[in-house]
Amino acid sequence: MKQVILTGDRPTGRLHVGHYVGSLKERVRLQNSGKFDEIYIMIADAQALTDNAEHPEKVRQNIMQVALDYLACGLDPEKVNIFIQSMVPELTELSFYYMNLVTVARVQRNPTVKAEIKQKNFEASIPVGFFTYPISQAADITAFRATVVPAGEDQMPMVEQCKEIVHKFNSVYGETLTDPQIVLPDNQACLRLPGIDGKAKMSKSLGNCIYLSDEPQDIKKKVMSMFTDPNHLRVEDPGQVEGNPVFIYLDAFCKPEYFEEFWPEYNNLDELKAHYQRGGLGDVKVKKFLNKVLQAELEPIRERRKMWEAKLPEVAEILQQGTKAARAKAQETMKDVRHAMRIDYFNEEGLF
Amino acid sequence: MKQVILTGDRPTGRLHVGHYVGSLKERVRLQNSGKFDEIYIMIADAQALTDNAEHPEKVRQNIMQVALDYLACGLDPEKVNIFIQSMVPELTELSFYYMNLVTVARVQRNPTVKAEIKQKNFEASIPVGFFTYPISQAADITAFRATVVPAGEDQMPMVEQCKEIVHKFNSVYGETLTDPQIVLPDNQACLRLPGIDGKAKMSKSLGNCIYLSDEPQDIKKKVMSMFTDPNHLRVEDPGQVEGNPVFIYLDAFCKPEYFEEFWPEYNNLDELKAHYQRGGLGDVKVKKFLNKVLQAELEPIRERRKMWEAKLPEVAEILQQGTKAARAKAQETMKDVRHAMRIDYFNEEGLF
Repeated sequence: MKQVILTGDRPTGRLHVGHYVGSLKERVRLQNSGKFDEIYIMIADAQALTDNAEHPEKVRQNIMQVALDYLACGLDPEKVNIFIQSMVPELTELSFYYMNLVTVARVQRNPTVKAEIKQKNFEASIPVGFFTYPISQAADITAFRATVVPAGEDQMPMVEQCKEIVHKFNSVYGETLTDPQIVLPDNQACLRLPGIDGKAKMSKSLGNCIYLSDEPQDIKKKVMSMFTDPNHLRVEDPGQVEGNPVFIYLDAFCKPEYFEEFWPEYNNLDELKAHYQRGGLGDVKVKKFLNKVLQAELEPIRERRKMWEAKLPEVAEILQQGTKAARAKAQETMKDVRHAMRIDYFNEEGLF
Repeated sequence: MKQVILTGDRPTGRLHVGHYVGSLKERVRLQNSGKFDEIYIMIADAQALTDNAEHPEKVRQNIMQVALDYLACGLDPEKVNIFIQSMVPELTELSFYYMNLVTVARVQRNPTVKAEIKQKNFEASIPVGFFTYPISQAADITAFRATVVPAGEDQMPMVEQCKEIVHKFNSVYGETLTDPQIVLPDNQACLRLPGIDGKAKMSKSLGNCIYLSDEPQDIKKKVMSMFTDPNHLRVEDPGQVEGNPVFIYLDAFCKPEYFEEFWPEYNNLDELKAHYQRGGLGDVKVKKFLNKVLQAELEPIRERRKMWEAKLPEVAEILQQGTKAARAKAQETMKDVRHAMRIDYFNEEGLF
């Protein structure tokens, strides 16, 4: 069986370091692993519209931003198909038919939906499109016959829902759809990076993100203003590294060679942490080091981004080609689905 | 502004006399009125699948039956586009985006949805596709820019929901969609014909329907077994005409000339009713008359149906042509919708 990946992001803003360690870095690794026959990276504009219906221009503008962030991170259009969800209308068709196979009660029980309803303060005013997005995600995954969905732990209930739809569809209409598997990132630190203010989630509206497109001075400013251990008041106080954003970021980004290059007093992160914990190490020093690490990590990304920004028509062409490939695949699946569902009228075998 | 009609039926069984007096007869009248620029008659297979997901073959087989019933009643493919819903995928696309403009609470309040959930004993196990079908119906209506939706009173909340979506869409994305009006049948008797057992609704599962394709002997058998006034035990007893299926059917089908032809003792239906009410008129006599009336009314329909049954490939061709015309119109609307929603990427004006 072909090994196929489907993953993507909502284009509601530029991507940040949280996206990078949480998924983009892993995607590039998977892309270069040679283990996959097809990789589809979806810019989920249609899904973004489910809770941004009144801001279509924002969604549209961010498609290009996300595409630039993808290319900046090293996603290679020779190896992956980056595509725009709304330009593959077969996805809405699949969603439509999958909706017949899922009960309202089942969607209401989906923990991800529950959590997001709470987070977005939707309550009774939740749009139907947002409420049903687990079903739409199942359409996205199955349209490409994805075998692997790289995603965070919070997305497990979504993939479970997708698997249920696949099993139900196949049992009602005959073996047609491919059963996907979620692949979680293996590094705990990669699961979720907090905002620079220490809040659990990075969010544009909270202004607590370091973006992949940030200039060096912005990165430095953000790092130097980072929330650390609030009880680490004086240099000599013992400090806490658990839950301390500066150390969480170091866990995610620091490589042993950075010590040699930027802070040869320590051999590795464990030594640095030990010093911070026993006291006598100031936050400013650690932040300066984190800044150097981040600058080193983000510089090549930012430079690649600038290179692509200078040739936007080529990026548009990459999106167009990726979308074409994605659509062709989705059309193939839709043809199989139509045949299985007995709604393939006017086909070659006869008028009916 | 062009005058456009959208209407249709779910292909879950052959059509019966209830469909005929409730909508088909009126459709033929509207078709021949010369007042409409475009008429779209939808065989709603996708909608039928929302609560028949596990019986796709039943839905498929009934498409041809419904098409035959349409042609039998006098719908003229030169004047109307008879089309298959699932072959116009733009309808699922529109549904998908309209779902962002309607809240879950709003759909829950829809009286038609409430009533159907109750009638079908769905309760908590209602499929999402069935729950959201008012939104899908709004897509059907607006895709064709229908100005007129001929429907029964029970469909008023559905058209209201559609109008709300039109207003919301136009206010968020700019004037794009056409506001439809429901047109109710003017004859009270036409609103709903009871089953031959006196039950309010004709239904295949209750076995209480007279089908347009029924043979003369079936019609006679069904008429002679009809439920009448249960207190009209002896011929001399006064009988009740209100709520008496035999008289409701006469109200719907009897023309003055039928008295001259079949029962010259009476000049009109009022005289017949008066006799029944004062007593001295037996049910069998009235049923025999109704049988003659129904035979006279249904014979030309049945004959036309047989004519079309003998040339099924032509019927398939009519469906194919109608679907082609319907799809072209829906694609045009979808293009406008995409432009309004800012999801018209890769268009002529530039890549983005």
